[in-house]
Order: sequence, then structure tokens, then C-alpha cells
Amino acid sequence: MNNKKLKLISLNGNIPLAEKIADLLEMDLCKCSIQQFSDGEIAISIEESIRGADVFIIQSTNHRANDYYMELIIMIDALKRASAKSINVVLPYYGYSKSDHTRKPHNPITAKVIANMIADAGATRVLTFDLHNAQVQGFFDIPSDNLFAVPLFAKYFQDTGKCGEDFVIVAPKSSGIKRARSLSEYLDTTLAIVDKGENHPYIIGNVKGKNCIILDDMITTGNTFLEVSELLKENGANDIFGCASHGLFVEGAKEKLEKSPIQDICVTDSCLVAEDRVADNVTYISCSELLTEAIRGIYLEKSLSKLFQLEGLDEIIDFDR
Amino acid sequence: MNNKKLKLISLNGNIPLAEKIADLLEMDLCKCSIQQFSDGEIAISIEESIRGADVFIIQSTNHRANDYYMELIIMIDALKRASAKSINVVLPYYGYSKSDHTRKPHNPITAKVIANMIADAGATRVLTFDLHNAQVQGFFDIPSDNLFAVPLFAKYFQDTGKCGEDFVIVAPKSSGIKRARSLSEYLDTTLAIVDKGENHPYIIGNVKGKNCIILDDMITTGNTFLEVSELLKENGANDIFGCASHGLFVEGAKEKLEKSPIQDICVTDSCLVAEDRVADNVTYISCSELLTEAIRGIYLEKSLSKLFQLEGLDEIIDFDR
Amino acid sequence: MNNKKLKLISLNGNIPLAEKIADLLEMDLCKCSIQQFSDGEIAISIEESIRGADVFIIQSTNHRANDYYMELIIMIDALKRASAKSINVVLPYYGYSKSDHTRKPHNPITAKVIANMIADAGATRVLTFDLHNAQVQGFFDIPSDNLFAVPLFAKYFQDTGKCGEDFVIVAPKSSGIKRARSLSEYLDTTLAIVDKGENHPYIIGNVKGKNCIILDDMITTGNTFLEVSELLKENGANDIFGCASHGLFVEGAKEKLEKSPIQDICVTDSCLVAEDRVADNVTYISCSELLTEAIRGIYLEKSLSKLFQLEGLDEIIDFDR
Amino acid sequence: MNNKKLKLISLNGNIPLAEKIADLLEMDLCKCSIQQFSDGEIAISIEESIRGADVFIIQSTNHRANDYYMELIIMIDALKRASAKSINVVLPYYGYSKSDHTRKPHNPITAKVIANMIADAGATRVLTFDLHNAQVQGFFDIPSDNLFAVPLFAKYFQDTGKCGEDFVIVAPKSSGIKRARSLSEYLDTTLAIVDKGENHPYIIGNVKGKNCIILDDMITTGNTFLEVSELLKENGANDIFGCASHGLFVEGAKEKLEKSPIQDICVTDSCLVAEDRVADNVTYISCSELLTEAIRGIYLEKSLSKLFQLEGLDEIIDFDR
Amino acid sequence: MNNKKLKLISLNGNIPLAEKIADLLEMDLCKCSIQQFSDGEIAISIEESIRGADVFIIQSTNHRANDYYMELIIMIDALKRASAKSINVVLPYYGYSKSDHTRKPHNPITAKVIANMIADAGATRVLTFDLHNAQVQGFFDIPSDNLFAVPLFAKYFQDTGKCGEDFVIVAPKSSGIKRARSLSEYLDTTLAIVDKGENHPYIIGNVKGKNCIILDDMITTGNTFLEVSELLKENGANDIFGCASHGLFVEGAKEKLEKSPIQDICVTDSCLVAEDRVADNVTYISCSELLTEAIRGIYLEKSLSKLFQLEGLDEIIDFDR
Amino acid sequence: MNNKKLKLISLNGNIPLAEKIADLLEMDLCKCSIQQFSDGEIAISIEESIRGADVFIIQSTNHRANDYYMELIIMIDALKRASAKSINVVLPYYGYSKSDHTRKPHNPITAKVIANMIADAGATRVLTFDLHNAQVQGFFDIPSDNLFAVPLFAKYFQDTGKCGEDFVIVAPKSSGIKRARSLSEYLDTTLAIVDKGENHPYIIGNVKGKNCIILDDMITTGNTFLEVSELLKENGANDIFGCASHGLFVEGAKEKLEKSPIQDICVTDSCLVAEDRVADNVTYISCSELLTEAIRGIYLEKSLSKLFQLEGLDEIIDFDR
Repeated sequence: MNNKKLKLISLNGNIPLAEKIADLLEMDLCKCSIQQFSDGEIAISIEESIRGADVFIIQSTNHRANDYYMELIIMIDALKRASAKSINVVLPYYGYSKSDHTRKPHNPITAKVIANMIADAGATRVLTFDLHNAQVQGFFDIPSDNLFAVPLFAKYFQDTGKCGEDFVIVAPKSSGIKRARSLSEYLDTTLAIVDKGENHPYIIGNVKGKNCIILDDMITTGNTFLEVSELLKENGANDIFGCASHGLFVEGAKEKLEKSPIQDICVTDSCLVAEDRVADNVTYISCSELLTEAIRGIYLEKSLSKLFQLEGLDEIIDFDR
Repeated sequence: MNNKKLKLISLNGNIPLAEKIADLLEMDLCKCSIQQFSDGEIAISIEESIRGADVFIIQSTNHRANDYYMELIIMIDALKRASAKSINVVLPYYGYSKSDHTRKPHNPITAKVIANMIADAGATRVLTFDLHNAQVQGFFDIPSDNLFAVPLFAKYFQDTGKCGEDFVIVAPKSSGIKRARSLSEYLDTTLAIVDKGENHPYIIGNVKGKNCIILDDMITTGNTFLEVSELLKENGANDIFGCASHGLFVEGAKEKLEKSPIQDICVTDSCLVAEDRVADNVTYISCSELLTEAIRGIYLEKSLSKLFQLEGLDEIIDFDR
Repeated sequence: MNNKKLKLISLNGNIPLAEKIADLLEMDLCKCSIQQFSDGEIAISIEESIRGADVFIIQSTNHRANDYYMELIIMIDALKRASAKSINVVLPYYGYSKSDHTRKPHNPITAKVIANMIADAGATRVLTFDLHNAQVQGFFDIPSDNLFAVPLFAKYFQDTGKCGEDFVIVAPKSSGIKRARSLSEYLDTTLAIVDKGENHPYIIGNVKGKNCIILDDMITTGNTFLEVSELLKENGANDIFGCASHGLFVEGAKEKLEKSPIQDICVTDSCLVAEDRVADNVTYISCSELLTEAIRGIYLEKSLSKLFQLEGLDEIIDFDR
Repeated sequence: MNNKKLKLISLNGNIPLAEKIADLLEMDLCKCSIQQFSDGEIAISIEESIRGADVFIIQSTNHRANDYYMELIIMIDALKRASAKSINVVLPYYGYSKSDHTRKPHNPITAKVIANMIADAGATRVLTFDLHNAQVQGFFDIPSDNLFAVPLFAKYFQDTGKCGEDFVIVAPKSSGIKRARSLSEYLDTTLAIVDKGENHPYIIGNVKGKNCIILDDMITTGNTFLEVSELLKENGANDIFGCASHGLFVEGAKEKLEKSPIQDICVTDSCLVAEDRVADNVTYISCSELLTEAIRGIYLEKSLSKLFQLEGLDEIIDFDR
Repeated sequence: MNNKKLKLISLNGNIPLAEKIADLLEMDLCKCSIQQFSDGEIAISIEESIRGADVFIIQSTNHRANDYYMELIIMIDALKRASAKSINVVLPYYGYSKSDHTRKPHNPITAKVIANMIADAGATRVLTFDLHNAQVQGFFDIPSDNLFAVPLFAKYFQDTGKCGEDFVIVAPKSSGIKRARSLSEYLDTTLAIVDKGENHPYIIGNVKGKNCIILDDMITTGNTFLEVSELLKENGANDIFGCASHGLFVEGAKEKLEKSPIQDICVTDSCLVAEDRVADNVTYISCSELLTEAIRGIYLEKSLSKLFQLEGLDEIIDFDR
Repeated sequence: MNNKKLKLISLNGNIPLAEKIADLLEMDLCKCSIQQFSDGEIAISIEESIRGADVFIIQSTNHRANDYYMELIIMIDALKRASAKSINVVLPYYGYSKSDHTRKPHNPITAKVIANMIADAGATRVLTFDLHNAQVQGFFDIPSDNLFAVPLFAKYFQDTGKCGEDFVIVAPKSSGIKRARSLSEYLDTTLAIVDKGENHPYIIGNVKGKNCIILDDMITTGNTFLEVSELLKENGANDIFGCASHGLFVEGAKEKLEKSPIQDICVTDSCLVAEDRVADNVTYISCSELLTEAIRGIYLEKSLSKLFQLEGLDEIIDFDR
């Protein structure tokens, strides 16, 4: 891989993940200095020439979202003014992705605000990983690819034999059913959904005597996984496992997850969190190989199709057209 | 209502609905001529002055989608050049709304293409009705409001006593569960979902001995409603009802719906279809009052909040943040 | 010609012409699927990787103009999202080209609407063939080239000896005089114009005892060619021939053209029409070689100047500046 | 007419015409200072508040085109920053209007460059007068109206009895035929065209024993009118008259026009030229009333349709669709 | 003042200043909720209808610059989608204003990034207060006004008799000389400049036996004021005073300023800082009246000229043109 | 240097400088014709193929600013339409650069107008030389580099031994102090400033018995240099020298400069002026090598950092952050 003109930049959101990607690409991260002053302002300086290079910026925005987005926007401007050939933004976690429509007429659509900021600053392409809703892709007019986490989890559970009719995939709320269905197809299981209802949550589908795998796209406070796993136990579930694409684990999440009856919770390394916030029953798998393949494909102008092949088998038959 | 400067234009997609709205506003539709020539080209001429007016264009694009979108885009251009003060596009049915993300890397996002065409042509505001996914709102940088159909169905079923614990709302596929939940809250019912699976569909949740209301956002071929209703019967359901925001009813739908065990299918008049395509067990309710209130609110610069109040009660607690 | 990175896509408007161009370039058309559903919506899928390629899309929009333009716009979006290096739109016939200015203040300028749609969707270059008015070029801010048909007709008539002082070129209406002048220079003939006037058409210029070649940019209903040729006969013309850049031949044209005293009408294959609509006295010549040379020049970054050399010899002296 | 919020600004291109318009509107021109320094730079200062006003800028660019266009662009910027409500550009003469398409592939389209400069600077509307080609309207995405001069000439010649079968309207080159036809309809005359040909010009149509009115859109050097009028005389014409929308009259034009056999040449005051450049046989009529009516209509949001009513009667039947 | 349609919104940057402005306008601040979650994301909800209103958002970004800019951008998006008539951004302190050009080729221009973000989000006008360089105005294509602090300081010192020949205004670095000159004209004093040089700072101009007023645009760490005041003392200055438009006072500034020989340092309330960071020798004056007058003028469409009258008397003669 | 795809175009502003650059690059200037007609309109034609080339346009706009800017904008349009790969604008002198902020609320920001015109026309990069204020860089969103003249003057004076403690650099007005400081660091001198004051100018700093070098960014009328040098003499200065980045030398400047006590005035060749306007005590040095290095670096995608290394050593410590 002739990487003279490929440059990889890590901002401060998730340096360990960027380093894994750099290792897989057998190259160094680009030298640049990023300072933050006492007034909160950020100063960025790129310390090698990126004129004419295809640059990939890796940034996660799962905490300090505003600071890390500003780092990103300022870096894009610097690269644009320094005449990068292409500016590719890699967002393993897309902060504000949940604000993707207005819940009330006086609401902003912040995920769109972010998309506009990235594109207007001069980004030429965006690569995301397991967006809360795939429709956020359409917020961009520049090319954007969204990779999926479900195949990674499918492999993780298959490797440990957690599949087949004794298992049921549980969507912890109605909006998670699409991901749950996708995983259930990989693992040949049935499905159940927890509906939070107005008063108290209840289960739709059958979990009694089954091993359950709770699947969600992100874990923030841990409340959902705790409540759902207890409800499953109350309803006669056997062993309980969990997985989530993005582990944000804010303060208090560790305690709740450890207190829950979930034996093992698998998350990817899309979000960097302090070690002392990670519960003992959490296992990390890496999304770095998947992201690396996508970066390589984009740089070498190869098709990315096979990276998406695991997704949406049934979508084509989803409309009765 | 001083309507000297309010103008209502109906294109060819759904003139009866536009006329209902004009009646409710106690005004006439604006005179304009729309011709289509033998080569397929459309010529539009507005036959009264709209200089300085707030114009609302009403267009549904549920069939002949391309012709009707071109009518819309050309009309927007004409209004812009004729110096309308504001150009408000009312889309009771948003054709291509299902193409809101890429299913494969080589796919277009046509719902975004449409959004860009509308905004680039000069529209200043968009009003939609029950979009397939609310995220399509975020495809616009101009103000856009999306009204919901569920409250209309809630009222329809409440008025006929179809609510409470003997009833269950059935989402005919996993993606429909959000609407189903919303209706179940209005009607104090439980929920069930039909999962199409890889081999054959099965039911998640309990329907035995219950009256079922199947809810979907659109009926196109009628296949889904037929299959799901038969599956419900096989699983011991009592009476079966149905409702859908948009009744597209393409060729063959009438036969399938009449053959199904569904007693009554409620749809709105967002889509205009030939009378001979409407099944005998279909009942129309009108979205015209809801749209009229929204138009009136936009024109008079009043808050639209109450028009949305029925939606998303639980959304605020949807993230474990 | 290293065509690894050159991709040729034909949409549905004029596949035979696209195939001729592909043959001349000794390459295959790109595989892609274009489906149209019962509700009129189009789904496009590109079935080979076009990442990094210079793509040329060939589309004529002489009938079903709206469907074919939407095919084009959706394809451009797909190519943009799939990271084509350049997206070159080849329009042998540019539907709506006649709507290039407002005839009344409340009129749209649809040719501009189309230009904006093409550019906004992401096209990087446009190649047209004998636009109704060359000013439509200026509707684009992206590079646009407009090739001329007159040299093709000049060659056709010269090859059969139809030139010199026994011939007169007839512009069938005043707006056609520029093309007529250009052809008359090639063929060393005089000029005449038919003015439709308010009551009945009459001839300006001398046609008595001359062989006439009627030249127009498009034939749609055939009315103009029928009326003009009969008028020429009434005024003592000898043999009458005709030519037109674009043969749209809508229903009824065949009958009128065959009924007319015109011996031979030469048109290019820019427009595809059903065979049973083509009059017996019509001869097709192909614009495929000219378009191929232009595509080759654009792809290889060679000058296109010689492709335009036949046009506008006198323009430089046209203003008394 | 409540003109508190209407402001009329004259730049240096044609102050007398702006003053006529101000008189007709019974208001003063807005105070502003426009200085040009020794290095050619222009400094503009608006000396009254235009915040919230509908501003009309009147500028002709028939000589010192670049200086006067820069005056215009800088004034638009000043008005935008000073928060004018609308910025309406009135261009009685649109410099560079002849550069409306590329004559060779390496040519600019300067009329489009100008249109983009005007719109990008912040103009919200454009009003032109007798553009060289009406298609230039489509170079704008902001509303643009183009008024016609032919009705003014029609009235001028009708008032002096110059109409009917003894007269013939002569287009001095092929591109002028459209205007000639329009005038001939008003005056009930026939038409003739002078074709410059490759060697020497000749007349298409019959002028022998007729009184001729030569019509062109602009007179620059006077060469065309001189040559054509002499040719008409050689071909047996009786009295010869002329008219042109825009009299640019560059150095040398006066001598040529006075030397010609043309008795009277009618031009509008769209272009301001030094008195000593105006030939004795030139008569000015004013376009100020027409422009004033258009400004009044735009300001009061009234329809402008009747100002265009004289044009293009036959256009609607111009395509054989 | 009819304020039905005027809405004033305060974000979190400087609520006390916003409240002063609201008091002066005799109106309430608009109700809205701004939450920040544990992951750093901000959620904004406007709790009254702003449809059709002229909205002024007041935000200072002197600390937590990124969070407060994101608050601003998200609020602009919310207002745009809620159909505010105009969105006016008032920035008493413009964070990142010092990053207004590239110091090295690989640097961003963050002040431009911010300007683009504000305008792209939908702001229609910007009002700033004493920008580091007035050229930042030109980063906007929307109207922008920049008010000056020097007149406020002039009044402050005049009121206490600190003016005339016994006083000298000291610019603490070369870039501050323009503000210093402006103040010296108001107070009829001479000027001195401190040049930091490469080794140690020295004074250009005469301060011996004079009372000095150090003037800068912002005080951040207090280092500059401490060093300069000590240097002045060493050079025989009498009493020393200071003033600065923006008091950012980061950690440690209080100690340095109190340690310095400066008797009194006057700053405006453009920046909100914790009370325990304000040195005892600091006096606040308010910019609220000046901002209120500007807001009133913009809302009522009155000229703002007099608010700027104190500035740049000599600029007009600054170029030897 | 493979220059097949590098093209250098000189417009009319400063052909001798462009020729020097072409010589240094060992290539010919691109053939193109630029005509100006009697009505002031410019016609441009590029006479070789530039399809796919990296084009650098060299234009100075120090006199006839509007004509030369229009030449530039029209050329950019021509290059864009002729499919240049990149369009790099080199402006040794940037006319209107002094109009970089509004002095009064009703003023334009013409330097921004120019920046927008250049970028909107299609330029992809801008290279300027010693802008009046570096902030003008930020007026562009395309990459822009600004080279500095001070290092050239430093070398000039060092080579002739004019440095050290016997010398003082004099800023002839307060705004020039930044450049003066930069030169004083190179030459190890002290600084003085002339303040024009309200009544009469006076000197801040010590010049008695010193040799003075007056430094300004441009000389237009020569008034400033004359007045300042006389003032220096009155205050006991020894020898007086001068330098300025841009020598515009309008009518009358020669006399004033020759009358002044300045022995030698060094200016660069960024501006072309008629020989008879150049004073005898003016010495030209060339900026062509610096510009050539920058062009070479941009074309070869090498870092430009070293070309800027001489500037702003102290800037990094300029803010007390």
C-alpha cells in the first residue's frame, strides 16, 4: 500500500482506536498539535505537509461532544486551507445522532446541524459506524457510508455457541427492533421486545426458559439494560447476555450494569471511556478492522460493498410494492 | 381570516383534497393552467397575480410520482419568478419517502434528492403528513413540519368503541412498531408484531381471543394486510380491523383486501386513487382538517404545537441518558 | 484507450444510441438496474464499482420527459454517493429546451429548472447536442459544451450533390434563420424564410424554380414541415427536401410528413421513437460519432475545438462594435 | 403612493434617465456619494438610512462597462450590509449581453458572469429592458423581468402614420428577425432581412418601391445601419427610417449615420452618450415611463402582465407540438 | 415600543448582561430550556412561539467557547425551523476572534469557521462589540455591525477628569495602537507604545512624569498589564490606570492585577466571569445601553450611524490616496 | 519540472512581472487574446487547450482596478468552462484591499466583494503578496496564501549595511507599526511611529541623530513619505531611507518623492506603473522569485512553510493567554 499520499489524523476523541487503525495500515498518525486554552478555545497546527494528500480524520464525540466537534471542524478548515486533496471524516461515534428529527415544532435537528457543519467546513466524505438511524446518511450531500455493528456481534456470539433456538434476541425498546431482527437472523433465534408502556414495561414475545441477548445501539446510564434484564428474569429467562454498538458508560453506569443479572455485555471500542467507568461484566471487541477496511477501500477506490453485505437481507422485501 | 394575500394552488396529484382544504379555508383555489404535451413536457401558467402572496401548493405524489414532482418543481420556479412572498409545499403523500437511506453503497437516497429539488427550486417551507420516517424532515434546511395520522385513527376507533384490553394493535412488520405503540397508548391496548423472518412470518406477542387492529403507514399491493390478517386468524384472533395513513392501492390491491378477513380498513384521503381500485372494506377519513389547521397556523404565524401534541409521549424517556 | 476508469451508463431514453457510442469506444455499457414501480417511483442500482471513475451518462428526454429526467437525477445522486470522480451528462436531446425564457411574467423557465436540477444533484459537466437556443449553455455554471447538427446535414447533402445555386435553404419560421444561414454557407445556397404572420404564412425570399431544403431544429407534429412544403410548392419550388436535428415524431406526424411533397427528410438519431411513428420519407443519420469524439476528448483532456469548427463563421462579425 | 420605504438610487451610468423616473414617481433620488480614485477604485457611501427599504438601483452599462458594473456590485453590497429589505437592480442597458453563449470552447459566457455577480452580491430582483436575447433572463435564479422596446417604436411610427402596406420592416441581420416580426405585426407591414453572407450582403424579401424601417436592438458603430440603408437604396427602396432599442453611438457613429440615407433614427434613452456623439438624424424617445410602471408594480406588488402584453403574440403557436 | 414580535433570547454565556438589556427594553427574556447531558450534548427547547418574530440571541463565548458556540448554533437551527422572521446574533464577546488569519500555512482561520457556522445555520444578522480586528466583519456576507468600546472608556475617564496633557495613553503592544490613538483623541493626550521586542520590552514615546492609561482590547492572564505597568513605573510614570474592552480574567489574573501598580482597571461587562476571579482594582462599566440602542435600532429599522460616530475620525485621511 | 500541465496566464495588469515568473519557471506564457472594445467590454479567448491543466493567472490591479478585475473574473469563467483542473489566482497587488471593513454602517466591504467574485467565478486558490491586512485571507473559503515583503526589504538593507543601533524603523502612521516591528527585528533597530494627530503629526519614539528607514505597505500620492521625512529631519534625523511593498505612484507622486529628503526608496515590482511616474530616488527589487517559489510549491504539492518563515516571530506571544 503506497501510503505517501495517505494521511491519518487522530483528534482527541479516541486516540487508542486511531492508533489501532494506524497499526493495521502500517503507518504513523500524522503529527499535529492540538491545544486547548483556559478560555476553552482550541488551536490546531498540522506539523507536516498534507498538500495533495487524501486525509482521514478519526474522531469520536461520545463525551465532551462540543469540544470534540469543534476540534473536528477546525481541523477540517486547516486541512482545506492547507490544500488536502480529500478530507474524509471517520466518526466511530456520531454525537447528537439521536437528535435526528424534531420532537416538537420548536426543536432543532442537531444531527443535521452537525452534518451541515462538517460538510460546509470542507469535508469531502464521511464514514460512520452504526448510526442510531441510518437516515442520518441522507443529511449529507457528500458521499457517506455507514458501517454496521451487528455482524461483529453475530461473530462474537457464534464463536461462543450462543445461537439457535434456545436463544432469543431482546430489543429493549420498540425502536431497537430492526437491529434485533438482523442479529436474530444471523443467530437463528426468535425475537422479543420490551415495551416501556405508560406505567411499567412488559415483554412482547416469549422469553421463558430461554437464554436472552439484549441488543441496543448504545449504553449510556445503564438503566435500560438493568431494568430489562430484571424484567426478563422475572419472566423466567435463563442466562442473560447483552451487546451494544456504543458504550458511553456515563457516571453510575458501572454500578447498574454490575448489579444487573447480565453475565456478559459486549461493546465495541467506538467510544473511549475512562477505565474506571467500565463494568466488570463488559467485554470489548474492536471495530478497528472494519473501519480500516473501509478506509483502505476508499483510499484505493475499491468497492466497499462486501463490508455491508451482512445487513438488511430482508429489507428488499420490506415494502409491499 | 384576511385571505387577500393567501393563495392556495392545487396541482394534479390530489385535487379533491385540495378542494376540501379550500372549502375549510372558505376561499377558492388559485387559477392556473397545467398542460402536459405529447412529449411528456409540462407547461404551467399562473393566471392570477401572486406577487407578494403566501402561497401553499398542495400536491400528492402517490402515483405518476415523477410527473407530479416535476409539476411541483416547475410551479415552485414559476412562483419564485412571479415574486411570491413565501412558497409553502404541502405534501400529503411524499413519494420516494421510503428511499431515505442507502441499502447498498451504490444506491441513491432519492428522498434526499427530492428534498433538495424542492428546496433548490425555491420552496421556503414544507408540510408533510405522516412520513415513512420522521428523519426525512432533517433532509430539509428550510422549516418543515410533519403531521401525524395516529391521532386521527385513535379518534376513529375510539368513536366506535374499539379500544381497551380486548384489543391488540398489530405492527405488520418490525419497522411499524413505533406507530403501533403510539396507537396502543391512545386506545389502552397491548401490542403485537409480525416478524416476516426468513422462512415464514410469525407473531411476537399475544393475539389469541383478541380483536386486532393492524396498523401500517401505507398500503400498496395489499399483500401485507392479507398475509398478516390470515396469520392472525390462524393464531386465534377474533375480529380484525386495519388502518393505514396512505392508501396507494395499486392494481390488485382491491382483490386482496376484499379477500382478507379484515372487516374494516381505515385510510386517510392523502392519496387519490381511482374509485374502482378501492376495496369494499375500506373506509376513508379525511386529513383535510388537520392540514387546514396547519396551513392556517403557518399563514397567521400561530404556534402549531397543539397539532403535534398526540405524538411521542414516551420519546422523551426513550434514551437512557 | 485505457478505459479502466471510463464508465458509460445508458439510461432508458435512447439505449440504441448509447450502444453505438459504446461500440465506437470499444467498451461495454456499465451494468446497472433501473426499475419503475406501479406507483411511478424509480429505483436505481449500479452493479459495478464506479468509485474513482469518469462516468458519462447518456440520456435522451424526448418523450416521457419527466420520468427520464428523474432517472437522470437519481442516477447522478447514486454516482455522487458512490464516489465517481466525474459525472458527465450527455443529453442528445434536452427536453424542455424550448422553455428557455418567460413568455409571460407568471411563467417558469423550465429549461433553467432542469439545468439547476442536474448541477445541484452533482453533475460536473454537460454535453448537449444542438440546443434549441445556445444560450441554455449559460444556464449552467459547470462546464457545458453544445455540439451542432448543421455540419452533419451539410455532409449529407453535399454527398448527394444537393448544393449550389439551384438550391435554397428555407427556415420554416423566423427563429430558425440562424441555423438556415449556417447550412446555406456550407452548401453555397441562398436563403428564404417562411413567416407565419397573423393570418397566413408567406415566403420572404425567392424559391421559384429552386430546389428547397427546409431546415428546423426539431420535428414534433409534422405540421410545420407539411404547411411550409405545401407553401413552397404553391410558390413554384422544384424538389423539396428537409432536415431536422431532433425527430420527436409524436402521434400523427408520420401521416403528415408522408402526405407532404417533401422527398426526403434527414434527422439524427438523437431521439428514439417507435419505428411505426417514422414516416417513409425520413432518413436517419447518426450523431453517435460526433458524441463519441466529444466524450473521448473530455475523457482524455484533449481540446474539443475542432468539433465546433463548422459553426458560427460569421458570428465574429455579427456585432457592429 | 406611500414612498417612505421606497428608495431610488442612481449610479453614474445614466443619471438623466434615473431623474426622469424619480420625477414620474414624484420622489427624490437617494443621497449617496460615489467617488473614483486615481487608482481606479470606487468608494461608495449611502447618506441616508435605507434600513428596511425597498431599493431600486438604476444603472446603465453601455460605456465604461467594467467601472459601472463595479459601481453596481459595490452598491449592492453596501445596501445588503445596511439591511435594505429588497435590492432591485434596474438595467436599462445590460452590458456584455451579447456574450450569452460560447462561440468557441475556450470562451467565457460573460453575460452569465455578470448575472452571477449581481445575484451573489445580494440583489433580490432584476429588471432589464430589451435584452439582446431574452434567454439571459434564465441566467438568474432571482426573479427577473425583461421589458420590450418594440411597443414604444410601434407607437412612435403609428403616431406619424408610418405603417401599412407601403412599409417594410428590415432586419439588418438574421438574428434580428424576431424583433422585426413583432414590429411588423404592430404596423401591418411586410418583412425583409439583410443577410451579410460571406462575400457581400443581400436582401431576402422585397423592398423595391417601399418605405423601409430598419430595426435593430443596438447601434454601436453605425456601420450596420449605413451599409444596410445603402443596400436598400440600391435595391430601389423609397424613404428609409430606422430604430434601435439601445443607442451606444461610439466614436465615428455620428458621421456614418449622418452620411446614410436614413431620414430618421429613433432610439430610446436607455443609454446615455455625450451629446456630440448623437447624429442629427437621431430622435430620442424615453423608456422612463415603461420602467417607472414596472418599478411601481414591483413595489406595490401589482401584476406586471400588461406591460408585456404587446410581445410574443405568435410565440404560443411557434412550436409544432 | 411594540414588542409583540420582538423576542430576546439569552443563552448561558452571559445571562446578567442579557437581563440588563431586557430591562432596558422593558420586556422579558424568551422562555427556553437549555440542558446539557453527561455526554456533553446540549438539548434546546423554545417554550413560546417565535413564528414570525424578530429574535435577538445574546451569547458571550469568553469561556467554554465550544459549548457556548454550539448552544448558539443549535438555537439558530431551532429558530430557523420554528420560522422566526429574523435571527439576530448578538456577541458581546466573539470567542476565537484572535484566530483571524493564518500564522503558518497549515493553520486554520477559526474566526472564519465560526462566522461560517453562524451564517450557514441560518442567522440573518450579527452584532458584535469591539472585535479584536474589525476585518472579521468581512467574514460575514450577512449584515454585521461592530460597536466600539473606546467611547465608553472616554466617558469614564472624562467624568473623573483623567484627560489632558498630563496623561498619556499607552498601547501595551504594537497591535493596540489604533485603539490607543482613538482614546487619546477623545482625552486630548499623547500616546506611547510598549514594544515587546525580542529580549525585553521597552517604551516608545514619553511617559516620564505623566499619568498613564493602559488600553487593550482584552485582559486574559493579566501578564501584559502587570509587565507594562511595572515598566512604566521604572520609566518614571506617575499614576497608572487601565482599561480593556473584554475582561476574561482566567485563573491567576486576579493576583497579577492586584500586584500591579495600576490603581484602577476599567472593563465592560461583555464577559461574565466568576466573582472570585475579579481583582479588587477592577471597575465594571456596562455595554448594555450601547447594545440595547443597537438592538432597538435594528428592530425599528432606524439608522445606527450615531452609535458609531465616535470612531475612526482620522481613518478617512489614513491613506495617501 | 514537468510542465505539460502547468499553464501560466498573464492578464494586462503587470505583464513584465508575469514574464519574469515565466522565465524563472522556464516556460512560456499561455497564448490568449484579450480585447477591450469601445464600449469598455472585454472579450477573452484562450488560444491553447487548458483542459486538465493547473492554471496560474497573474494579475495586478493597482490601476484601472475595475477593468483588471473584470479581466480576471472573465478569464476565470473561461478557464472553468474550458475545464482547467485548478484555477490559481496570483494577485501581486490586491486592489480594494484597504476597503476591508465598514467605516460607517452604510459602507460596503469591497475587499470582500472582490473575494466573493473571485471565488464564485470558480477560482480554486488565491496567492496574494503583502496584503494591507492579513485578515483579508479569511475573506476566502478557498485556500489562500499571503506572502510577505518585509524579508525582501530586510535583505536589501542588510546587503548595504543599513542595520543596527544607528538605525530606526519609522512607521509613518499607527496602522503600519506591525510591519515596522517585523523589519526592526531583522535589522536589530529600534522603532518610531509618526502619529498624524488631529492638528499636526508628531513623532513617538526617538529619531534624533539616527538614520531612519520609513516603511509603509504602499505609496500612492507620496504625501505621507514627504511629510514624514520632513518631520524626521525637523526632529534631527540623519540619513533617511524608505521602502514600501507596493508602489502605485499616481500622478504627482514623482515630484513629491524627489522633493523629499529621502535618499533611496525601495519598492517591489508588484505594481506596474509608467516609467515617467517613477521618482529618481526609487529603487525596484523584484518579488518574482518569491512568487515563483510559491507557484512551484503549489503546483508540485510541496510545503510552502519556508516562504513564510520570516514573519511574525513574536506573534505567538502576542496574546496574554
